[in-house]
Amino acid sequence: MKKVSLKDIAKKAEVSTATVSYVLGNKKCRVSEATKERIRAIAQELNYQPNQIAQSLKSGKTYTIGLIVADISNPFFSNIARVIEDEAAKFGYTVIFGSSDESAEKSWKLIQFLKNRQVDGFIIVPTENSEAQIEYLQEQKMPFVLLDRYFPQLNTTNVAINNFEIASEMVKDLIKTSPKKIGMIAYKNSLIHMEDRIGGFQEASKSIESFIERVGFNAIEAEVELALENLLQKKVEALFFATNSLAVAGLRVLQQKNIKIPNEIAIASFDESEAFEFFYSPVSYIQQPINQMGTRALQLLLNKVNTPELQEKTEILTAECVFRKSSQR
Amino acid sequence: MKKVSLKDIAKKAEVSTATVSYVLGNKKCRVSEATKERIRAIAQELNYQPNQIAQSLKSGKTYTIGLIVADISNPFFSNIARVIEDEAAKFGYTVIFGSSDESAEKSWKLIQFLKNRQVDGFIIVPTENSEAQIEYLQEQKMPFVLLDRYFPQLNTTNVAINNFEIASEMVKDLIKTSPKKIGMIAYKNSLIHMEDRIGGFQEASKSIESFIERVGFNAIEAEVELALENLLQKKVEALFFATNSLAVAGLRVLQQKNIKIPNEIAIASFDESEAFEFFYSPVSYIQQPINQMGTRALQLLLNKVNTPELQEKTEILTAECVFRKSSQR
Repeated sequence: MKKVSLKDIAKKAEVSTATVSYVLGNKKCRVSEATKERIRAIAQELNYQPNQIAQSLKSGKTYTIGLIVADISNPFFSNIARVIEDEAAKFGYTVIFGSSDESAEKSWKLIQFLKNRQVDGFIIVPTENSEAQIEYLQEQKMPFVLLDRYFPQLNTTNVAINNFEIASEMVKDLIKTSPKKIGMIAYKNSLIHMEDRIGGFQEASKSIESFIERVGFNAIEAEVELALENLLQKKVEALFFATNSLAVAGLRVLQQKNIKIPNEIAIASFDESEAFEFFYSPVSYIQQPINQMGTRALQLLLNKVNTPELQEKTEILTAECVFRKSSQR
Repeated sequence: MKKVSLKDIAKKAEVSTATVSYVLGNKKCRVSEATKERIRAIAQELNYQPNQIAQSLKSGKTYTIGLIVADISNPFFSNIARVIEDEAAKFGYTVIFGSSDESAEKSWKLIQFLKNRQVDGFIIVPTENSEAQIEYLQEQKMPFVLLDRYFPQLNTTNVAINNFEIASEMVKDLIKTSPKKIGMIAYKNSLIHMEDRIGGFQEASKSIESFIERVGFNAIEAEVELALENLLQKKVEALFFATNSLAVAGLRVLQQKNIKIPNEIAIASFDESEAFEFFYSPVSYIQQPINQMGTRALQLLLNKVNTPELQEKTEILTAECVFRKSSQR
């Protein structure tokens, strides 16, 4: 690759390399406007590409943000990535993203890689057991915002939603016709967002018999089928899914087994899915404020990038229940 | 941020900075194994973080790939991004991604940004009017592979599918009960993948009356509704959607208008969507080989990174028709 150097431009403009460097770097220097314009015109004519890596070594800013989501193929995360990308572009920032696949090891690899490439800050959807990574970023004074989940014992800036309250509201609606038994399918995950969804379910259903089945992230289909069979044996009359991917897997099984929704079992889910509106009994769901979550995370991060001494804070945004046919018995 | 430098390590190990640099950079040098180990242990103890940007300035390789997709919030692209990410990880590469939003301007910004950050190569889903960007990368001898779409007039390495043949196969099935009229909803997009899908539709339906409606990328919902109304006025008995997002918007309108599928209109779509299996009349669709597309694109790119003089080639992979109830009249 034959690259145009500052030297090439200096030669053609008949000035020193240092002068070219000052002019193209927009630094103060005693050069006439006419010369400045001549240098810029020559740079453009020669198609000069500044070496951004060398530039960032000097300026220390890259106008890049690292975004680590749990799984880019989940529509919740790919939609929120899109919002953050669009919002960042307004401020001249580019977003680099990757998925941790709910693995602390992958998350650590991404954090190290992006940090070594000197992103200006991070928006992170943290995985289980990644507290040490977060503390490491704090020690290194790297600005970051945690999104969707956070660690209550760590003093960080977080954007999350009212998981406990909104789960409780949806479950209260699910049991308004006084069923005797209700079930929930959740992930095996000790993070606060999952614990709060389960806590809200328990709080709302404490007057009746309730059952919770927890499944792993791998082999969702098989594990959800097993979990559903356990709950069907218990004869639950209502069912709450902790995420969209659990619900889509569950709908598949319920359809195969020809179980009538909502007559035999009333259902509702956290998150959205295109599948919900086309299920024969449109699925009631908890709508997370994705636009607001992405926008606020980006804004809080830029505040921290520009004012490192800012106090940490947690913003809890409000989700909404969308009631449809699947929960109306 | 207090950074540990090579100097700090040299001081503690009582050797020269150059020696530390050689040892940590795994370069040949006359240093005993014992000293090498002492230096590595001290580097680890002090939590030394090599400055990867400075490193890449020297080695010229970053083990990073830039991936530019049309829209990360579309499941086709977010799933393919996931495949490329997983495959790249096997070879020690990290994938940095961004979406062009079908805009040549955004695509150019991303290409420039990533090129300046010195990615080793690109996988690009090109937008309309981005030929000059592709030619620029060729001039700059930057390795890249085009995915999903390509420009037939440019000699590049491409991974695509048999759009014409598979669209033709699906449409032939749609009209096997000899309807008099068929419609298609496609994007206003002159790229080869869209032209081929339309070409396959025309080829297969040439014995009957056919109508094509083309909509823009923005305001899909409203434009698809209008397009559908035009086709309904023409009294089409079969309908083919050129992508999943067009089909999902179309299903919404068909459901609102209470049009019976497949009895009143038989339908089929390109691509997949979670919505298709839960629509009351499960939707027939063309399944793109996403795993194979992502894997081959990555492998071809790494071949080009490692052997720049390789000849360009186009790989056409085979999609499959999945026939379900929506197309069976």
